Amino acid sequence: MKQIRGGVTAAKGFSAAGTAAGIKYQDRKDMAMIYSEVPCRAAGTFTTNLVKAAPVKWDQQVVYGTKQAQAVVVNAGIANACTGEEGMGCCRATAQKAGELLGIPAEQVLVASTGVIGKQLPVDRIRGGVEALVPALAGSLEGGHDAALAIMTTDTHEKEVAAAFTAGGVTVTIGGMCKGSGMIHPNMCTMLSFVTTDAAISQELLQEALRADVEDTYNMISVDGDTSTNDTCLLLANGMAGNPEITEKNEDYRAFCEALHFVNETLAKEMAGDGEGATALFEVRVVGAATKEQAKVLSKSVVTSSLTKAAIYGHDANWGRILCAMGYSGAEFDPERVDLFFESAAGRIRLISDGVAVDYSEEEATRILSEPKVTAIADIKMGDAEATAWGCDLTYDYVKINADYRS
Amino acid sequence: MKQIRGGVTAAKGFSAAGTAAGIKYQDRKDMAMIYSEVPCRAAGTFTTNLVKAAPVKWDQQVVYGTKQAQAVVVNAGIANACTGEEGMGCCRATAQKAGELLGIPAEQVLVASTGVIGKQLPVDRIRGGVEALVPALAGSLEGGHDAALAIMTTDTHEKEVAAAFTAGGVTVTIGGMCKGSGMIHPNMCTMLSFVTTDAAISQELLQEALRADVEDTYNMISVDGDTSTNDTCLLLANGMAGNPEITEKNEDYRAFCEALHFVNETLAKEMAGDGEGATALFEVRVVGAATKEQAKVLSKSVVTSSLTKAAIYGHDANWGRILCAMGYSGAEFDPERVDLFFESAAGRIRLISDGVAVDYSEEEATRILSEPKVTAIADIKMGDAEATAWGCDLTYDYVKINADYRS
Repeated sequence: MKQIRGGVTAAKGFSAAGTAAGIKYQDRKDMAMIYSEVPCRAAGTFTTNLVKAAPVKWDQQVVYGTKQAQAVVVNAGIANACTGEEGMGCCRATAQKAGELLGIPAEQVLVASTGVIGKQLPVDRIRGGVEALVPALAGSLEGGHDAALAIMTTDTHEKEVAAAFTAGGVTVTIGGMCKGSGMIHPNMCTMLSFVTTDAAISQELLQEALRADVEDTYNMISVDGDTSTNDTCLLLANGMAGNPEITEKNEDYRAFCEALHFVNETLAKEMAGDGEGATALFEVRVVGAATKEQAKVLSKSVVTSSLTKAAIYGHDANWGRILCAMGYSGAEFDPERVDLFFESAAGRIRLISDGVAVDYSEEEATRILSEPKVTAIADIKMGDAEATAWGCDLTYDYVKINADYRS
Repeated sequence: MKQIRGGVTAAKGFSAAGTAAGIKYQDRKDMAMIYSEVPCRAAGTFTTNLVKAAPVKWDQQVVYGTKQAQAVVVNAGIANACTGEEGMGCCRATAQKAGELLGIPAEQVLVASTGVIGKQLPVDRIRGGVEALVPALAGSLEGGHDAALAIMTTDTHEKEVAAAFTAGGVTVTIGGMCKGSGMIHPNMCTMLSFVTTDAAISQELLQEALRADVEDTYNMISVDGDTSTNDTCLLLANGMAGNPEITEKNEDYRAFCEALHFVNETLAKEMAGDGEGATALFEVRVVGAATKEQAKVLSKSVVTSSLTKAAIYGHDANWGRILCAMGYSGAEFDPERVDLFFESAAGRIRLISDGVAVDYSEEEATRILSEPKVTAIADIKMGDAEATAWGCDLTYDYVKINADYRS
């Protein structure tokens, strides 16, 4: 597997576009479309929030129903959540318009929205956006790039990645784009992720691969512990690579999963590092765990701790907050056996041994914590399992963005 | 029951003092002592964090062991958490010194600490503090007040309350003080609460009353979702009111519970409203619930949502964030039946009916949200149960305090 340039248009047969439809933002692209020349097998994972936005309900009907799709229409600015029957009607109208212009059934058009909750989408502008997007569809790097720009909300930069691998002697490509700052993050910062591949693979394995990988990637990031009403991850496979169809968990499937994981993890880390107001990507690795589940619970608890996040912003080696967050996570471990380290491009430093502070240099710790990517590593000495979670620091700008956002 | 002036010295036989021992802070009181003329029955509840500070372990031995105590020694500035055997030794040395000077067994001295995790307490200064505190003990309002000032960390004001009620024809008094900003809040802002009463009551009922009431008061507040290593709530009863001993759940017990609840709820709300950096007390009431537990889960989820808290700071009626936080709480309800209101001294406004926005004035909503105490009320129309949680807004100052705290 190797990384290649591009995003959702990297795989054969996929084109994309972005346009300024004036949904909420002015003077910027705010609608995107992804299209495949041929129908795709569709897989998806969605928010676990009881309050599900209309586009989530629409997509679930597709992904759990016919499991087939050929296009995706996305808008930024309004989430189409808590919008009742009118909101569902807007999803239908969007899919119908796109289906009509693309010459495909409306039931093969997926939709996604991100933005403020509770406002109705301006259906006429959405229809106008679809009319502008269809002729603009391009299979080039630019087509994918325009789409990646159009789905941003408080994101500071677009997020794209692609990879290629070999299956059955042919090159298979997988690429994706995303926006938002976490599966665990709402409103403006809903996580939306779109991954496309030309792999030939059965829908069952496509869904299984996605569901499993989401647990280790998007579900391991957090910006503020809030789970959006709109979180959506879609994976479309159109089979145009021409590889022998992957129908069992053989070598080709493992190669596919490896590339999928690379794409998902890259996008997930991009989201965490671009969390609202963030100045640093904060990675937490728990090693020496008895089970992976235990390591996940512990690492996620640290990465969601407001106090730890504020300390990272302050470049303060306040390890007590990390041990504290592990302690209230609900996972069992012996605090008096924990070793803790900080690591970054500037070096590595041990802070505690067997739960008690060692004599370390605060100056060196601050230097290590002043990098744009900082890792905390906790060894709990119970076994061989481990897990990694990603988040970001908590800054003045996070408060500013979210106190000022709607008004 | 009526509220009276005072705090931990309001009840008969209790005296208290505060002193500047130079533990960490300069030029301010940072050690306090509470003393009862006669041995008390002791009840307590403690942090659920797996990482428990040394004083928590010491107090658990007392409260779950002899269940009897006569004095409490508290320090602010260093938490004595993650300090291993040396930390436990410091608790023992503190209790021994206090016991020696007060003429009581060391095993009847409770200790509590709040402040930075991982640093050892300076034992000599602690001993010096105890030597200064014993002769300063006073049963006056001032004695209690000095103690309340000495236990503060990032608190902006001291927190005291007292109440009196009648049991068996005699007046019984209960009073308390606390610091910190939440049962769910660590480090500097560990919650410490000390309640004293001259009620004659069995230790079993004392503990039961405290344990039950903590669930509805301290455990319903949150500042940032972090649970400290040091959270401690102690309740001492010395029987000096002379009431017939409360040994069953009769009318006297109910009067005691009512007064205890008043004291605990007042202190809990004071802590939430004085959360780090807070400009407003944020109250969330969930009504119409099927069960109290369901209402608690929902109200606590809203009050801990960073995005909701930031919106409260911005005086922004961003109700979507509230519905979103209810949705990911894990409690079942029908989002399409929810009514939501904001209420404050400036009025009351309905925002959503049956899960969909009503036509309300943003201007009026902002006016209501600009008060120092703001309440969100969600009616989920499933039954008659309800619960209230308290928190505060998320502000620039929260980040400032916690990014700069240790350095």
